[in-house]
Amino acid sequence: MITLLAGFTGSGESLLNRSPWAENLPERVDRLIRTGRMAEAIIVMPDAFTRYGGSQYLNSSATGRYEDHLVREVVPWIDRRYRTIPEPRARAIAGKSSGGYGALVQAMRHPDVWGLVACHSGDMYFPYCYLPDFPKCLDVLAGHGGSVERFLRAWRRMPGRSESSLFPAINTIAMASCYSPNPRTRVGFDLPFDLRTGELRPAVWRRWLAWDPVQMVERYRRNLRRLRFVYLDCGTRDEYHLHYGARMVAARLRRLGVRCIFEEFPDGHANIQYRYDRSFELLSRAFARR
Amino acid sequence: MITLLAGFTGSGESLLNRSPWAENLPERVDRLIRTGRMAEAIIVMPDAFTRYGGSQYLNSSATGRYEDHLVREVVPWIDRRYRTIPEPRARAIAGKSSGGYGALVQAMRHPDVWGLVACHSGDMYFPYCYLPDFPKCLDVLAGHGGSVERFLRAWRRMPGRSESSLFPAINTIAMASCYSPNPRTRVGFDLPFDLRTGELRPAVWRRWLAWDPVQMVERYRRNLRRLRFVYLDCGTRDEYHLHYGARMVAARLRRLGVRCIFEEFPDGHANIQYRYDRSFELLSRAFARR
Amino acid sequence: MITLLAGFTGSGESLLNRSPWAENLPERVDRLIRTGRMAEAIIVMPDAFTRYGGSQYLNSSATGRYEDHLVREVVPWIDRRYRTIPEPRARAIAGKSSGGYGALVQAMRHPDVWGLVACHSGDMYFPYCYLPDFPKCLDVLAGHGGSVERFLRAWRRMPGRSESSLFPAINTIAMASCYSPNPRTRVGFDLPFDLRTGELRPAVWRRWLAWDPVQMVERYRRNLRRLRFVYLDCGTRDEYHLHYGARMVAARLRRLGVRCIFEEFPDGHANIQYRYDRSFELLSRAFARR
Amino acid sequence: MITLLAGFTGSGESLLNRSPWAENLPERVDRLIRTGRMAEAIIVMPDAFTRYGGSQYLNSSATGRYEDHLVREVVPWIDRRYRTIPEPRARAIAGKSSGGYGALVQAMRHPDVWGLVACHSGDMYFPYCYLPDFPKCLDVLAGHGGSVERFLRAWRRMPGRSESSLFPAINTIAMASCYSPNPRTRVGFDLPFDLRTGELRPAVWRRWLAWDPVQMVERYRRNLRRLRFVYLDCGTRDEYHLHYGARMVAARLRRLGVRCIFEEFPDGHANIQYRYDRSFELLSRAFARR
Repeated sequence: MITLLAGFTGSGESLLNRSPWAENLPERVDRLIRTGRMAEAIIVMPDAFTRYGGSQYLNSSATGRYEDHLVREVVPWIDRRYRTIPEPRARAIAGKSSGGYGALVQAMRHPDVWGLVACHSGDMYFPYCYLPDFPKCLDVLAGHGGSVERFLRAWRRMPGRSESSLFPAINTIAMASCYSPNPRTRVGFDLPFDLRTGELRPAVWRRWLAWDPVQMVERYRRNLRRLRFVYLDCGTRDEYHLHYGARMVAARLRRLGVRCIFEEFPDGHANIQYRYDRSFELLSRAFARR
Repeated sequence: MITLLAGFTGSGESLLNRSPWAENLPERVDRLIRTGRMAEAIIVMPDAFTRYGGSQYLNSSATGRYEDHLVREVVPWIDRRYRTIPEPRARAIAGKSSGGYGALVQAMRHPDVWGLVACHSGDMYFPYCYLPDFPKCLDVLAGHGGSVERFLRAWRRMPGRSESSLFPAINTIAMASCYSPNPRTRVGFDLPFDLRTGELRPAVWRRWLAWDPVQMVERYRRNLRRLRFVYLDCGTRDEYHLHYGARMVAARLRRLGVRCIFEEFPDGHANIQYRYDRSFELLSRAFARR
Repeated sequence: MITLLAGFTGSGESLLNRSPWAENLPERVDRLIRTGRMAEAIIVMPDAFTRYGGSQYLNSSATGRYEDHLVREVVPWIDRRYRTIPEPRARAIAGKSSGGYGALVQAMRHPDVWGLVACHSGDMYFPYCYLPDFPKCLDVLAGHGGSVERFLRAWRRMPGRSESSLFPAINTIAMASCYSPNPRTRVGFDLPFDLRTGELRPAVWRRWLAWDPVQMVERYRRNLRRLRFVYLDCGTRDEYHLHYGARMVAARLRRLGVRCIFEEFPDGHANIQYRYDRSFELLSRAFARR
Repeated sequence: MITLLAGFTGSGESLLNRSPWAENLPERVDRLIRTGRMAEAIIVMPDAFTRYGGSQYLNSSATGRYEDHLVREVVPWIDRRYRTIPEPRARAIAGKSSGGYGALVQAMRHPDVWGLVACHSGDMYFPYCYLPDFPKCLDVLAGHGGSVERFLRAWRRMPGRSESSLFPAINTIAMASCYSPNPRTRVGFDLPFDLRTGELRPAVWRRWLAWDPVQMVERYRRNLRRLRFVYLDCGTRDEYHLHYGARMVAARLRRLGVRCIFEEFPDGHANIQYRYDRSFELLSRAFARR
C-alpha cells in the first residue's frame, strides 16, 4: 500500500486529471507495473483539501484534523476494505511538494503506521520557502484594508481564484491555518507578522518553525531510525528553493544515523511527476526486502 | 444537444478535471440546470487532441480529419445513441479559445448540422494572435539547429512538455499543422516563415489567413445568416489580444446582416469558465424559442 | 569623423552617462585609441530626441526635420568648426538600435555625405519588431478612453515616464510620429491601426513598411553600392527579434552586390556597447584604406 | 549644505546622468531654487562606489573606510573650500535607496556632524529586503561551482555586468562586503549562509542585523534625539518591500521620543527622484528655522 498525498491546492481526485502529453497517476502506475519496474500495489489517494487550499496533512483547529483523518480513519478503513498487509513494513507514504512535506512529517510522527516514506520536493526550511512571501502577502492584504477577512471575502467572490499575484497571500494564509491555528481569533489562525508594520511576530514564527522538517528531524530522530526506507529528492532549480531545505534535512539525517537515499535532479518544482517512477520503483524493492 | 469543444492542449475528457475552488464542467451544468438557468441538455465533449496539442477542429493531412470526425462521425453517432432532436435548430456548438474558434468555424461551414453557436475568446485576427509568436518560435527552433524535426524530437523527450518558453514554438507548429498542412514535406506541414532569415512566406501566410474568422465571415455570410443563434464574447484583457479579433468579427457580422450577440467582459484569457453560465443560459433560451 | 546616433529615448549627451562597471563613450574611444585599435577621430554625437522619445533621424511634420538637421546643419557645422576631411570617404555614421536604424537609413539616402556605415542591432523587419506591440499599445490606450491625446496628457503628468508597461504605447506612438506623420490630424500622425477594433490600416501600415530597411535596400541599391564600408550586426537573442531583420537585409545586400560585413553575436539588445570596439576598429581601418 | 548619497551601483557623478523626460539632479535643484521652493544650498555628491557596487557608506576591511571618508575627509574638505556654515545645524545628509540607508545611519552615528537627515526608501528590515535574495544568490553561485571567487571572476569578464538574474548575487555579495567583512577570508567577507546547504549562519546574520536601522534605532536613540530634523518616506509598492521597514523605524522613533516626519507615497522603488522636491523643501525650511 502506497498512500500518495497531493500537493497544495490538489486532492486525491486531482491526481486523476488529464494533462496533455502526460500520464495521470493511474496510467503511470499501470505502466510501471506492466514494465516490471514495480510490483502491484494498493495506491491510496486521500483528500485533505481545505477552504484555503490544503492542510499540510496536520491537525488544525482552523480547518480540521487531517493528521488524525489519515492515521485513524483512512488507514484503518483501507485495511478493512482491501487486501492489505496491515503493518508498517507494508505501508509507504509518499508525495510531492506539500504532499512530500506531509509524507515526511507523517512518517516522523507515526512510525507505527508508516514504515516507508518518499518525499519529493517537500516544503522545508521555512525561512527560504515561506518567509519571502510574507511581504508580498502583506501587500495583497493592504489592498483590502489590511484585513484577512476582507481579503478572503473578496477572494471567494473571484471567478478564477488562481491569479498568480494572489498566490503569496493564499499560500501564507493556508500555512498559517496549518502551523499557527488559534481558535481565539476571528479568522481562526495567527499570521506570523504584524498586519500594520509587517514585523515578524517571533512567537508565531517559532510555532511555524517547530513544523519545519529541518528542525523536526532532530526531535523525531528515534522515530526516523525505525523507518524501513526513507527517500528524499529535490530539483536543483526548485523555484521555492526547496533544494536547500532538502540538503539540510539530508545532512541532519546522516548525522543522526538515519539511513536515507537523497537525490537531486536538474529540474524545477513543476512537471516532475516522472520522479514517481524513481520512488515507486525503490519503494517496491524496499517492500520486497526481508 | 450542446457540443463543447476543448481549447488547445485540451480534450473532451480534460473538461472533467478537478481544479481547486472551481466546478468542473458537469458540476457547472448540473448547477445551471438545478437552479433553472438552463434546461436539461445532452452535452457532447469530443476529443480532437493531436500530437501537437490540437486540431482546431479542421481536416488536415498532417494530423487527421477532425472536421469530418465531428460532423460525420460524432454527431450521427450521438443521434443514434441518445434521445436527440436530430436537427440544426436543436444542435449548438460552443467552446473557449481554440474551442471557440472551432465552434465558430464549424457553424460557418455546416449550418446544416449546427444551428446555434457560442464562441468564447476564440482565436481570431491572426496578425495579432499568432504572428507575434513567429520570431519566438524561430528562436526556439534555432536552439535545435533551426530544424522542426530536431526540435520535436527533443521536445518529445522532455518530461514536462509544458515549459512556457516553448509554447510559442509548439503553438506555431500546431497551427501550421492545421492551417498549412503539406503532405509533400517531411514534417507534413509548411511553416509560414523562412527558417533561416525568419521572413514571412506570403503564400503560406495567406493559407493561414484564409482560416482567420475575420476573413472567413465575409465568405460564409450566407451560411451565417441561416444560423438561429450566434454568440461571441471576449475578455478585454485577453493576453492573446483576441478582443480585437472579436470586435472585427462582430463588426463584420453586423455589416453583413447576421444577428449576433457580442459581449466583452473585464477579464483575461484564463479562468473564464464562468462565461459558460452566460452562453449556456442563452443557448437554452434559444433552443426553446419557436 | 564618426557621427554616433543614440538609440530611442537617448540623445548625444546621454552617451556621456555613467553606469556602474562600464565605460561611457568617451572612455571607450580613449581606450581604443590608446591601445592602438583605432586612430584618432572626431566623434560627433547629435541630439535628435523628440517629445515622444526619438526621431529615427527622419524628417517629420509631427516632430521636426531631423534628417535635414543631420545632413544640412550638423555636418556642415562640424566641417566648419573642426579639422575634418569634408568628404564621404572620411565620414562614418554609426549607431545602435534606433541609432543603428538611423545610421543605415542615412547612409542609404545620403551617400554623398556618408561613405561608411555601422549599424548595430538596428530596427528592421517591422512585422516582427513593431507589429507585436500594436495590440499592447491598443490595450494601454483603451485605459485612456482609446484616445492618444488623453493618454499622452496622462503620461506627461507621470513622475517616472519610463514604466515598462507603457513602453509599447510610447514606442508605437513615437514610430508613428516618424513613419506616418499627418499634419491634418490633431495629434499630427496616423496610427497604423483602427483605434476601436484594432484592425491594421493597410494604407498607413504600408507607409511604415516603406521605411523598413528590409524594403528600402532594394530601392536604394545604387546608393548602397557607392558606400565605401557597410557593417551590420545583431545579437542572436535580440529581445525585439532584430536578428531576423538583420539577416534579411544582409541577404538582400549580398544579392544586390553590395559589399557588407555582417556579424551575429550571442547576446541580446541591451548592454552591447562593447560592439563599438568592433565597429570602430573596422571603421578606422576602412578610413585608412586608399 | 546637503550631502546627497547615491543608491547602490550609483556614484555622485551618476546623479548628473541624463534620462529621457526627466531632470537630472542639478536641474531639479535649480528649478526648486528658481521657483522659491528651497533656498540656495551647497549640494555635495560624494562617490562611495566599490568593486561590488556600493559601500552603504560604512567602513569595511573588504572595500574601504567610506564612513570615515565622508565624515573625516569630505566634510572637512568642503568646509575648507566652500562658504559653509560648519555646524551640524547647517548640514543635512540625504539619499534614496542605499543612499537613504547611508543618510539615516550617518545621522544616527554622527549627530556632531549632521543635524538633519532625509531618508527616501532606505534599506531596512533586512529579513524582508535582503533575506529573500539569499537562495537566489546561492542558485547563481551554484552555477559557478558554489564559489564566490569563481563567480566574481566570471562576472568581471561579462560585457554587461548588469543582467537582472545576477542582481541577487551581486547585491548579497556587496552587502556582505559592508555588513560582514572578514579580513581572514580570501574574498574578504563572510556570506550569511552556508555555501553548500544554504543554511543561515546565525553569527554572520546577526552581524548584518546589527546594521539594520530597525535594530539600530534603539541603540542610537540618544543621538537621534539630538537631530534637528528627521525625514523618512517610502513608496507603498516598493519592490524591495522597504515600506514595512520604514513603518517599523517610524514606529520606534515615535516610541523613543524622536521627532520625525514619516510619509508614504503610492509608488514603487524606481523613478522616484521627484521625492527630493519634498525633502529638499522641508530641509530648506528646517535650515531656516532658529
